[in-house]
Amino acid sequence: MTSCKILVINSGSSSIKYRLFRASKNGGGGARFALVTKGLIEKIGHKDSNVHDHKEGIQLLLNTLTQGQGAKIKDLSEICAIGHRIVHGGVTFKKPTLITSEVMAKIRECFELAPLHNPANYAGVEACQAILPNVKQVAVFDTAFHQSLPEHAYIYGLPYEYYEKYNLRKFGFHGTSHQYVAHEAARILERPLRKLKLITCHLGNGCSIAAVKHGQSIDTSMGFTPLEGLVMGTRCGDIDPASVIFLAEKEKISLEEIDRVLNYKSGLKGVSGLSNDMREIWEAAKEGHHRAKLAFDIFTYRIKKYIGSYIAAMGGVDAIVFTAGIGENEAHVRNRITKGLFDFLDDKKVRVLVVPTNEELMIAKQTFHVVSL
Amino acid sequence: MTSCKILVINSGSSSIKYRLFRASKNGGGGARFALVTKGLIEKIGHKDSNVHDHKEGIQLLLNTLTQGQGAKIKDLSEICAIGHRIVHGGVTFKKPTLITSEVMAKIRECFELAPLHNPANYAGVEACQAILPNVKQVAVFDTAFHQSLPEHAYIYGLPYEYYEKYNLRKFGFHGTSHQYVAHEAARILERPLRKLKLITCHLGNGCSIAAVKHGQSIDTSMGFTPLEGLVMGTRCGDIDPASVIFLAEKEKISLEEIDRVLNYKSGLKGVSGLSNDMREIWEAAKEGHHRAKLAFDIFTYRIKKYIGSYIAAMGGVDAIVFTAGIGENEAHVRNRITKGLFDFLDDKKVRVLVVPTNEELMIAKQTFHVVSL
Repeated sequence: MTSCKILVINSGSSSIKYRLFRASKNGGGGARFALVTKGLIEKIGHKDSNVHDHKEGIQLLLNTLTQGQGAKIKDLSEICAIGHRIVHGGVTFKKPTLITSEVMAKIRECFELAPLHNPANYAGVEACQAILPNVKQVAVFDTAFHQSLPEHAYIYGLPYEYYEKYNLRKFGFHGTSHQYVAHEAARILERPLRKLKLITCHLGNGCSIAAVKHGQSIDTSMGFTPLEGLVMGTRCGDIDPASVIFLAEKEKISLEEIDRVLNYKSGLKGVSGLSNDMREIWEAAKEGHHRAKLAFDIFTYRIKKYIGSYIAAMGGVDAIVFTAGIGENEAHVRNRITKGLFDFLDDKKVRVLVVPTNEELMIAKQTFHVVSL
Repeated sequence: MTSCKILVINSGSSSIKYRLFRASKNGGGGARFALVTKGLIEKIGHKDSNVHDHKEGIQLLLNTLTQGQGAKIKDLSEICAIGHRIVHGGVTFKKPTLITSEVMAKIRECFELAPLHNPANYAGVEACQAILPNVKQVAVFDTAFHQSLPEHAYIYGLPYEYYEKYNLRKFGFHGTSHQYVAHEAARILERPLRKLKLITCHLGNGCSIAAVKHGQSIDTSMGFTPLEGLVMGTRCGDIDPASVIFLAEKEKISLEEIDRVLNYKSGLKGVSGLSNDMREIWEAAKEGHHRAKLAFDIFTYRIKKYIGSYIAAMGGVDAIVFTAGIGENEAHVRNRITKGLFDFLDDKKVRVLVVPTNEELMIAKQTFHVVSL
């Protein structure tokens, strides 16, 4: 296998995103990756859709790849491996893993921890197995990169029994992205990752930040769920836990409804009353909209504080890395966060990097690595 | 009035703590304060108690001060003012305030924000008014010092309507203590408070930390309630807000019970399974008790991170100030927190100070100041 194609699948409840990469082995045992094509199957299972389930979705995807004028591959046998994004790997999966029936069972055990995501991810794996039973499949977990957190960073100040009974602990998410941009940062800085202290800021509609010390995630802002941490597009991030109880009592709404408020009606949208989109927030703030300006200020202030806390946790920092939609494109966000941030540091040469994330490429690389072993 | 006595009252639901100070004006418009006596009335309202309510408690206290061999004052007229600790001043009270009927009404409005504390504090004021109607009384609020927080530090990433409807925002507590030790730190450092960046760590059974920039609190770890922030003796501090909902569903317990778990069964006690007392945690950790060591590590790691975040928020720090039971007495806690904490700072001469707190003295001083105006 000097060259092969890797299909990367991100299967949601009603959609399948895919990318096809060509991997070519180079001399040094590594490989080069080139994007061949990408696409999206939507409305799976919708009333007015021809695609009734994930299996039909995968079949459609494979037909698109192999048939007609736009065909990207001649034969399905060119696909040497499929990499799947799986949101939650629980405490079981600490790295990308070749999928076996045993692994499938363990992914099912993590359904409870990510009831919205893992079943949909799983459906994508099952569909591929049914259609391409002989192709190796690899699970790449959003949580795996953060499994290196030390115990004192992932255990909450709650009764320890809840950790034992329910795995109620910090997991962290966006792991593939944090890992990818950390590697890229090391490459850009021309220094080995194992000698760097990096803070990676994944600022998209979901936002998280990670302290990557010597290549390992030692802390991250998302927690047991993706609700904790930074203020996001529609998620509240850190709040006084007592306010959950206060709101349930005052508003006389169910816990389910509270959950919806905290996940979909909060964050930039809830504070500004305008939008969950940072571009709109910024435009309105510039025009003097008070709550838009407030949302911008809260968003950036919280990130600044997290950066400070991770500098303390790592005992210094070599570079701050921004990625994802806001991180890559909103310079005023980056400027506000980093303004004055290094004045008090010994080494004022902390680098600020913008690194476009590419979780699919990372999944392709990790998939290739696993099947090459 | 060149000399007068100030009575300081901390009225709880079933107890009244008091201290009597002598205030002597000095030449420069300031005053010196000396503790005359202190005491505690307990079991107010208990079945087997002779003290049926707060009025009887205050009467007993005054009798103790004036009667018998241990009498500290000859006549009640020597008391020129009474200072009351009031936990919650809401958004109304930004500084110590002379109590009038209007002020009393506004303290009642804050009952909802501190249902366990404010009514008991209020009962103490009412009792003093009934017995000493002609003595000036001053309310000193735990929240007042933090009323200088900027909006982006006190507004949560929640729908803004909740702030408007319920004042759901960060208030912060232990304000009198943070303010007192900040003043003391400036005195010890022989530098004006208005030029200092201080981080004050109040580590008792309740724990909070504040960023005091140029004499003003600009951020603090406790929030809408005293549950947020650091891990404490029995309180959880920061957790994923989704875990409140998760626990209510999994454990099938009421929100009231969840509230009890987060406030009384968590923190050092919940993690260690041993004790809420840091001395016992430390002893057990030294002997190899895993969960005691974990509790110690979590407790100190969280403080270290908050310190880092406040250094970033203030753009530097001149001194870290430790106070209250753990902060004053547990050197290994301070050592763990500050280990390596300044290595990355420009100014490696950050001072670490231990300043015994004295909220009662601060209340006496502020009371004296208000009645001298």
